[in-house]
Amino acid sequence: MSLSYGKYLKLRELLACQEPESAKHGAPAHDELLFIVTHQTYELWFKQVLHELDAVLALMGGAAVAEKDVGRALHHLERIVKIQGVLIDQIDVLETMTPLDFLDFRNLLTPSSGFQSAQFRSIENKLGLARTQRLRYNEADYEASLDAPDRPAVGAAERAPSLFGVVEAWLARTPFVASPQFDFWQEYRTNVTRMLDEDRATIEGKAQLAPAAQRAQLEEFARTRETFASVFDSARYEALRAAGQRRLSYEAFLAALMIMLYRDEPILQNPFRLLTALVTIDENLSLWRYRHVLMVQRMIGAKIGTGGSSGQDYLRRTVEAHRVFLDLFNLSTYLIPRSLLPRLPNALREQLGFRRDA
Amino acid sequence: MSLSYGKYLKLRELLACQEPESAKHGAPAHDELLFIVTHQTYELWFKQVLHELDAVLALMGGAAVAEKDVGRALHHLERIVKIQGVLIDQIDVLETMTPLDFLDFRNLLTPSSGFQSAQFRSIENKLGLARTQRLRYNEADYEASLDAPDRPAVGAAERAPSLFGVVEAWLARTPFVASPQFDFWQEYRTNVTRMLDEDRATIEGKAQLAPAAQRAQLEEFARTRETFASVFDSARYEALRAAGQRRLSYEAFLAALMIMLYRDEPILQNPFRLLTALVTIDENLSLWRYRHVLMVQRMIGAKIGTGGSSGQDYLRRTVEAHRVFLDLFNLSTYLIPRSLLPRLPNALREQLGFRRDA
Amino acid sequence: MSLSYGKYLKLRELLACQEPESAKHGAPAHDELLFIVTHQTYELWFKQVLHELDAVLALMGGAAVAEKDVGRALHHLERIVKIQGVLIDQIDVLETMTPLDFLDFRNLLTPSSGFQSAQFRSIENKLGLARTQRLRYNEADYEASLDAPDRPAVGAAERAPSLFGVVEAWLARTPFVASPQFDFWQEYRTNVTRMLDEDRATIEGKAQLAPAAQRAQLEEFARTRETFASVFDSARYEALRAAGQRRLSYEAFLAALMIMLYRDEPILQNPFRLLTALVTIDENLSLWRYRHVLMVQRMIGAKIGTGGSSGQDYLRRTVEAHRVFLDLFNLSTYLIPRSLLPRLPNALREQLGFRRDA
Amino acid sequence: MSLSYGKYLKLRELLACQEPESAKHGAPAHDELLFIVTHQTYELWFKQVLHELDAVLALMGGAAVAEKDVGRALHHLERIVKIQGVLIDQIDVLETMTPLDFLDFRNLLTPSSGFQSAQFRSIENKLGLARTQRLRYNEADYEASLDAPDRPAVGAAERAPSLFGVVEAWLARTPFVASPQFDFWQEYRTNVTRMLDEDRATIEGKAQLAPAAQRAQLEEFARTRETFASVFDSARYEALRAAGQRRLSYEAFLAALMIMLYRDEPILQNPFRLLTALVTIDENLSLWRYRHVLMVQRMIGAKIGTGGSSGQDYLRRTVEAHRVFLDLFNLSTYLIPRSLLPRLPNALREQLGFRRDA
Repeated sequence: MSLSYGKYLKLRELLACQEPESAKHGAPAHDELLFIVTHQTYELWFKQVLHELDAVLALMGGAAVAEKDVGRALHHLERIVKIQGVLIDQIDVLETMTPLDFLDFRNLLTPSSGFQSAQFRSIENKLGLARTQRLRYNEADYEASLDAPDRPAVGAAERAPSLFGVVEAWLARTPFVASPQFDFWQEYRTNVTRMLDEDRATIEGKAQLAPAAQRAQLEEFARTRETFASVFDSARYEALRAAGQRRLSYEAFLAALMIMLYRDEPILQNPFRLLTALVTIDENLSLWRYRHVLMVQRMIGAKIGTGGSSGQDYLRRTVEAHRVFLDLFNLSTYLIPRSLLPRLPNALREQLGFRRDA
Repeated sequence: MSLSYGKYLKLRELLACQEPESAKHGAPAHDELLFIVTHQTYELWFKQVLHELDAVLALMGGAAVAEKDVGRALHHLERIVKIQGVLIDQIDVLETMTPLDFLDFRNLLTPSSGFQSAQFRSIENKLGLARTQRLRYNEADYEASLDAPDRPAVGAAERAPSLFGVVEAWLARTPFVASPQFDFWQEYRTNVTRMLDEDRATIEGKAQLAPAAQRAQLEEFARTRETFASVFDSARYEALRAAGQRRLSYEAFLAALMIMLYRDEPILQNPFRLLTALVTIDENLSLWRYRHVLMVQRMIGAKIGTGGSSGQDYLRRTVEAHRVFLDLFNLSTYLIPRSLLPRLPNALREQLGFRRDA
Repeated sequence: MSLSYGKYLKLRELLACQEPESAKHGAPAHDELLFIVTHQTYELWFKQVLHELDAVLALMGGAAVAEKDVGRALHHLERIVKIQGVLIDQIDVLETMTPLDFLDFRNLLTPSSGFQSAQFRSIENKLGLARTQRLRYNEADYEASLDAPDRPAVGAAERAPSLFGVVEAWLARTPFVASPQFDFWQEYRTNVTRMLDEDRATIEGKAQLAPAAQRAQLEEFARTRETFASVFDSARYEALRAAGQRRLSYEAFLAALMIMLYRDEPILQNPFRLLTALVTIDENLSLWRYRHVLMVQRMIGAKIGTGGSSGQDYLRRTVEAHRVFLDLFNLSTYLIPRSLLPRLPNALREQLGFRRDA
Repeated sequence: MSLSYGKYLKLRELLACQEPESAKHGAPAHDELLFIVTHQTYELWFKQVLHELDAVLALMGGAAVAEKDVGRALHHLERIVKIQGVLIDQIDVLETMTPLDFLDFRNLLTPSSGFQSAQFRSIENKLGLARTQRLRYNEADYEASLDAPDRPAVGAAERAPSLFGVVEAWLARTPFVASPQFDFWQEYRTNVTRMLDEDRATIEGKAQLAPAAQRAQLEEFARTRETFASVFDSARYEALRAAGQRRLSYEAFLAALMIMLYRDEPILQNPFRLLTALVTIDENLSLWRYRHVLMVQRMIGAKIGTGGSSGQDYLRRTVEAHRVFLDLFNLSTYLIPRSLLPRLPNALREQLGFRRDA
């Protein structure tokens, strides 16, 4: 029998999955379908996001990643960015439901909750949200809110290599960071140190500056120098990392910084794009969370005295607490002007280009 | 057993509805899931659009519509506008699939086709797309492409009152258009005629104008006068209607024009908003169709010599041919400056306001 | 001389306003034009937002607001919502500038800063951001960062009636809240009290419930009752207000709640839409601020030890601290199911409808 | 004197460029500012688009393009895509102006018109819209509508190399298309011919097929074969080109096809992305034009009998007629399944990768 659109998409089954509770309780609430459809489209897109993440993990999870596959991985990540755009924008639709309309069926949904979305938890895990980083909700681990049959898949996603992990390992393997001909890190430190020395001399030489203003500028300068010093010394970097203020390994951090600075070299273009995509994914996830927070607030308001324990407060704190690629945002702290960039030796430059240039 | 998120949304069933053909044929194509998920989210949103249209038809389908219910109907229509925004924007996601990736499974889908979407056909029918207006595809009526079990619902949607129909009837019942104290149409015609006379005198009086320029302005003026004349005379209006150039009944047309012109009067505000929402829905549907056309073109290109018979060409022609509320766009032709607007008698003005003003 | 497009839009002047500093310093940075154009389009839109706010303030600032003008004010507010959509979305464009490209001209811009946007400060003032609510930046009032010639206009915007103020006064004048025939507040309290009594009885009657679970439910119940109690008593409400946890006057709060609950009555439809538009404007402003925060973070990273004094941290805290219509979000806390809504007497119901119904 | 935000952005000058005609005529129309601001933001973005196009033309206009610069050009094109997103979306704002509000000042703008936007004409020219392809408006060349002082720049943009031109030349120089070790075009034709032979055999072998169905399938097959035949023969291709049905040179066409088919090879990834960006730019331009058409229609309606000469009709026809990169959409016609793709010899494959693989 030939394939039809409806059979291919299993529309009969798909369109039978909407069962409003309000109808079962004899008081159909018009907007409950909207509530269901919105969440179901979220879950369909979540499935797609997981599919893309799995593809990236497969491409980048090995001991070596072919250049070809960096481009492929990038393509999957850029698709995730586009999907996130839809996830964010479609909150506009759900917000056409008014708080009073929500009240028509809200109580019937108890105790179900979006915290039970196993796919969303798997996305967090596959991105690389660390267990230690997760806020606890109602003093319980996140698995507590999952349906029992969902736990194995979510747990497996947590134990398997994550996007953060494979990217970190891939970065750490970047070949060009240090070689006999060019030690990026040493050259970078030299140039930064010279830049800082000049900055300080400039400030100290400002004869016309009021003493208080000069002091302020020197304090600001001291913070800048301190910021660089904290990464020049691997021991200090590791201390920051142990304190949870950095997450990337030192090697991965250095490589990521080099990619940011030399991103126009052909072989570094895709890695740069990939890092940018990760930053955007992280940003979009935070934006989605924050829109979610505001929507919940306008839907249900806030009770007196619920303090830190409520779902709404938990959501609000995850906006910043559950970020995965924060280290990549912080890389910008360490950029230096192109004019101060150590010059790549020609031999290395050729290595970063295509063979056919020869 | 208590309700969980997953049970409520029937996630097990929902997430089992994605069955890529490529996997069945032993050559899984990564992007087929995207193709399925995109279309399934479309169908879920279509279901919601139908739910909103049904609500509007129920509210406005009777012999009289309470003012309260105009506001409710408007709310449903504005939700449809928001949903359309998502439908249009999410084409961005599908376009991350490249033509070559599509080719990996495209042939496996034959002969299924989006033309078989019964829900989409029902939306067109409920909006009020007339059978006579529908383009024929492959020399067949649109039902020919539907799965047999889908035909009854689509046919019922066609035979039942449509949004176009109930709005037209509701407009035609607008009470204030003509009354002993104020005959909108007569006053409007008087003012328009005066305006046109002045326009002509102005042109004829432009002594410094070159004859050719004056002739051009007079031709333009003649077209304007002709445009108004075509609606001043109900017989001429009906002739345009018979020729398919107008669709709204004369009474509905007059009422819609009055609503556009006096939209700030309290009782006309919601009707004005409702007409605006219909215009936007029509516009969004055309935009969605056109984005769809461009996407198909970039996905599959074009064959030599397929002429007018191809699906792509059919799609392209529906962009304009399948518009439902074109008459409301054309209303703007007949607007006149506020300064020329017939003044409402105070008694009528009070009727258009709220009781509490008394 | 006849008007041309270019003359009308003053394009020669407009397109001469882009003067990159990098070019002046002899090292043109390609992306500086993007930085300028983005900010200039922001300022143009800000001018439009101010124009719309002024229109609303003029329409609603008087001792009485005609129903007609509520609809007009709403139209202006809904336009602001659309403009905010563009303001948020166009951050996507600025984010195509990479941190390294920004570095090419960033230092040349010192000490100019977005905090100096007088129009943005005026928008905040006209919306009704209270001086007491404003976070201080670098231990200084916000005027400190403005150019001197900009201060008078911004200060005038602060001293003049704000949107918050005129809406609050307009709400407080709502006529139907208490009348001999119907005292909304008394009826509401009666019904809420009955609802709460039943809730408690239900919890206490759950024989099968474990004691700990029952205790948790009772605590939750106590919080709910406390939440209602805090507004039942005007003295307690005023205490919350004095503590900065509420901002709307008691009368305005009651009226807003009544509008939310009876929004389908014809005369309350526009007020309801207006409150919804205010909520959306507040939400969009927060979203824009948060996107801004994330963009700044990815552009410039973060320094060690800057603590709470940095611009980035200030921006981040304004996301929540500078919200203006938070009370309207919190209204949802006090909604009750439609089934518990006090029934409006027929005489009142008629007053809430249109005269012509008679 | 230190740089302030306002001085940097020349806000005093910028915000003095809005001079509503209605105010000059003594009857200020509130919405005229919106009309001006919207068009001014368009012009600012147009300036940015021209800046990006110039950068691409500079990077790709030479006799050879370094791989590094392909990545840079791509970055500029992707920014244009983002800007187009804003240009399309902000029509939402202008559409909050109602036709009646527009009428308050519409006549004052005569005879100025958007057709006079010199920057927009320059964008069309720099993209590569050919003069022969341009629709004529009012039987005149497009320069006729420009202000005299604007003509030189627009004309220069037309005479200088366009994006279409430099991309075509760059494609034609692609080195890997034919070499002693691998002749892409010959291998491709061989595989396509085999595929077509098998297709025909399959159809002819369908014993159970009704004769009419078989005939239909054979006709469809003939069209497919004809489509391929039209490009296999360079003379036929040139004939299509002379007839205006193709625009790319034969060499550029072959190279673009090869890039589409082997896009995963490292050296072809950026070229593939670049072609995709061009397709998206073309698509977005058409979408913007079509949204523009619909907006104009809802703003001013349509006159009887203006036939093909009106501005609205002209706009509508440009949506399809003024497309620049249509050939790239049509490439999809010639894609073949990955399984039929000629295998690249290892030596060539290495050439397409990075040197460091060695």
